[in-house]
Amino acid sequence: MGPGPVNADPRVLRAMSAQLVGQYDPSMTAYMNETMELYRGVFKTTNEQTLLIDGTSRAGIEAALVSLISPGDRVLVPIFGRFGHLLREIAERAGAEVHVREVEWGTVFTPAQIEQAIRETKPALLAIVHGDTSTTVAQPLDELGDICARHGVLFYTDVTASLAGNTFEADAWGLDAVTAGLQKCLGGPSGSAPATFSPRAVEVINARKSIEAGIREAGDAVSAHPIRSNYFDLSMIFDYWGPKRLNHHTEATTMLYGARECARLLVDEGIDAAVERHRLHGAAMLAGVQGLGLAVFGDLEHRMNNVVAVRIPEGVTGDAVRGELLNDFGIEIGTSFGPLHGKVWRIGTMGYNARKDTVLTTLAALEQVLRRSGATVTGGGGVGAAYEVYQDAAGS
Amino acid sequence: MGPGPVNADPRVLRAMSAQLVGQYDPSMTAYMNETMELYRGVFKTTNEQTLLIDGTSRAGIEAALVSLISPGDRVLVPIFGRFGHLLREIAERAGAEVHVREVEWGTVFTPAQIEQAIRETKPALLAIVHGDTSTTVAQPLDELGDICARHGVLFYTDVTASLAGNTFEADAWGLDAVTAGLQKCLGGPSGSAPATFSPRAVEVINARKSIEAGIREAGDAVSAHPIRSNYFDLSMIFDYWGPKRLNHHTEATTMLYGARECARLLVDEGIDAAVERHRLHGAAMLAGVQGLGLAVFGDLEHRMNNVVAVRIPEGVTGDAVRGELLNDFGIEIGTSFGPLHGKVWRIGTMGYNARKDTVLTTLAALEQVLRRSGATVTGGGGVGAAYEVYQDAAGS
Repeated sequence: MGPGPVNADPRVLRAMSAQLVGQYDPSMTAYMNETMELYRGVFKTTNEQTLLIDGTSRAGIEAALVSLISPGDRVLVPIFGRFGHLLREIAERAGAEVHVREVEWGTVFTPAQIEQAIRETKPALLAIVHGDTSTTVAQPLDELGDICARHGVLFYTDVTASLAGNTFEADAWGLDAVTAGLQKCLGGPSGSAPATFSPRAVEVINARKSIEAGIREAGDAVSAHPIRSNYFDLSMIFDYWGPKRLNHHTEATTMLYGARECARLLVDEGIDAAVERHRLHGAAMLAGVQGLGLAVFGDLEHRMNNVVAVRIPEGVTGDAVRGELLNDFGIEIGTSFGPLHGKVWRIGTMGYNARKDTVLTTLAALEQVLRRSGATVTGGGGVGAAYEVYQDAAGS
Repeated sequence: MGPGPVNADPRVLRAMSAQLVGQYDPSMTAYMNETMELYRGVFKTTNEQTLLIDGTSRAGIEAALVSLISPGDRVLVPIFGRFGHLLREIAERAGAEVHVREVEWGTVFTPAQIEQAIRETKPALLAIVHGDTSTTVAQPLDELGDICARHGVLFYTDVTASLAGNTFEADAWGLDAVTAGLQKCLGGPSGSAPATFSPRAVEVINARKSIEAGIREAGDAVSAHPIRSNYFDLSMIFDYWGPKRLNHHTEATTMLYGARECARLLVDEGIDAAVERHRLHGAAMLAGVQGLGLAVFGDLEHRMNNVVAVRIPEGVTGDAVRGELLNDFGIEIGTSFGPLHGKVWRIGTMGYNARKDTVLTTLAALEQVLRRSGATVTGGGGVGAAYEVYQDAAGS
């Protein structure tokens, strides 16, 4: 019940025990095509270039940034948590001239603040996290696409922490590049990064296409300024996933099976229904921790459905409570990074764990552990408040 | 029965269906430590920094090269097949001044040729493939470590195609950096890259350490010339796998389970016994294709145990034979790249597929398909010759 990675849906693990097939076997390339189509549904996009990066969610971020950024490009990174710093870090290593804006952790930017920063810095790319698990809040993105379009700025976001648990619409919101991971609301293991790229992003990326030595043929593209990474060179990855099936990496077949199953389960459930499930169980968890008498961190209006940050009460040692929950009750919750380390616990309700039984069990166990640690708690207040949320939902 | 990826050992797939545990759960960090120790056995090294890169074998190569190479460094890449070109490509994108030497595909370099090239180019790093699947030959490395040591050159090799199927000794041969993959003789899926780094390599890498923004604390390392990639920054990956457990990527838990099981199976079998198994079944396959009357490509003295390149007979359409084998017999074999594309088939005997039944079945099916395609074949000659190899081995 931490902020992710969480335990995977057993159906995803079962899919990952299937035997492998050859890299260019017709059934393998059919799986690849199916996976592209499934993730178009998950991201709500019609982008042709919707595929998997073979690595963790951080690999997806680096693939997007190193392929979109030419050294010297100006990039604007608005930071509202630990993962905004990561975008800055990766953009800097890709050779960008990075400009940052920061707001206090737990809050988000207004569209006007973003537009003002774009006017001031004239970036080629806006790179911003959607939901930052470190603070549990999600930056509203729905008005930023229009702003980027007006100023001729490419618009990238990472939705690892938020996708499938919170409303997200790649096309309607004007995104040019989006990257994700499986280990949060998608209910899979870390190790594959679903991503999607708009035609405008593809044009920017393909302008630097350089077919690698070793498979290059006469007339093939050679750029004077190729993308700085071979592994993350999206122009070649597009050709690998496209009809050319140009040899690049050897697809991580088992991770593909897992990523495909994550998306199949979501599309079967309905992506909007999955978001509503996260909203419901997240609301029950929030009500529950408040019902125990605990205070919550961050701007609740912008809180992600799938994680809540709880202030550690005075006199309570956060790590001792986490240790007791894990060792005695088998329940993992997290702490956070930087200014919030040791100040808050982060409790997730995501993916396979966004369920009534996990919410109630966690609240019941937390009450016992807090009481034993000497904190003042409202007996039955957590489970009771969660039950009320479920009853209201059932009655509505 | 292609040149890899091949089907995985069912025991590896079963290990990969285990439920996930938290990223810093004591059982997870224990698995990580166990995996490090198991791969020390597989690589035959005592290197502390023996770990997994989360990505395909190509990710392992890029992590090694981008972390070892500072832009402007001279790198020597002796090329004897497609994957030598890949090392050149990745080193160039990492900003190296790359010098190449080439020999004809199917042959290898002599130690004297390598030493001469080192004298001429004075590189900081020698980067050379061990076994290049494109040509099926393996470069002898056992004398190169001493040469590199004499000239103060770091020594890197990629053993994706050869490890566990051919003798390899990281420490005895003086390697500073080695990367691999699971999808060949290790019997697992692509998607995790085992790697090992000598203390000398670690020193070079850690000299550029820069703890990333977002988790950096007062006094932490900040380099003026950090490694160009965040995802592949080995100095941070070492800290993630080491006692500091510094947050970097979210470990790809299921791939870790798979990589651990691959190594467990090899260490149980005994790494030398695994090499001998590949030698035996590879010898049977070689004798078998020759027994059918087919010619073999490349320097047989340096052929890898686990793959053989067979010249496609005159008048036979290579892809038609491959299609019939796959569609009618369920057996996949490969072709090759560049100058060998459409000229040879590559038949593998590796990992879980290095078995008597797979060798005999493949030879029996190949005989039938070749006969139907109009080629002249020796009836029973393939299976008969393979049986002889097995009988000789049993009698010895």
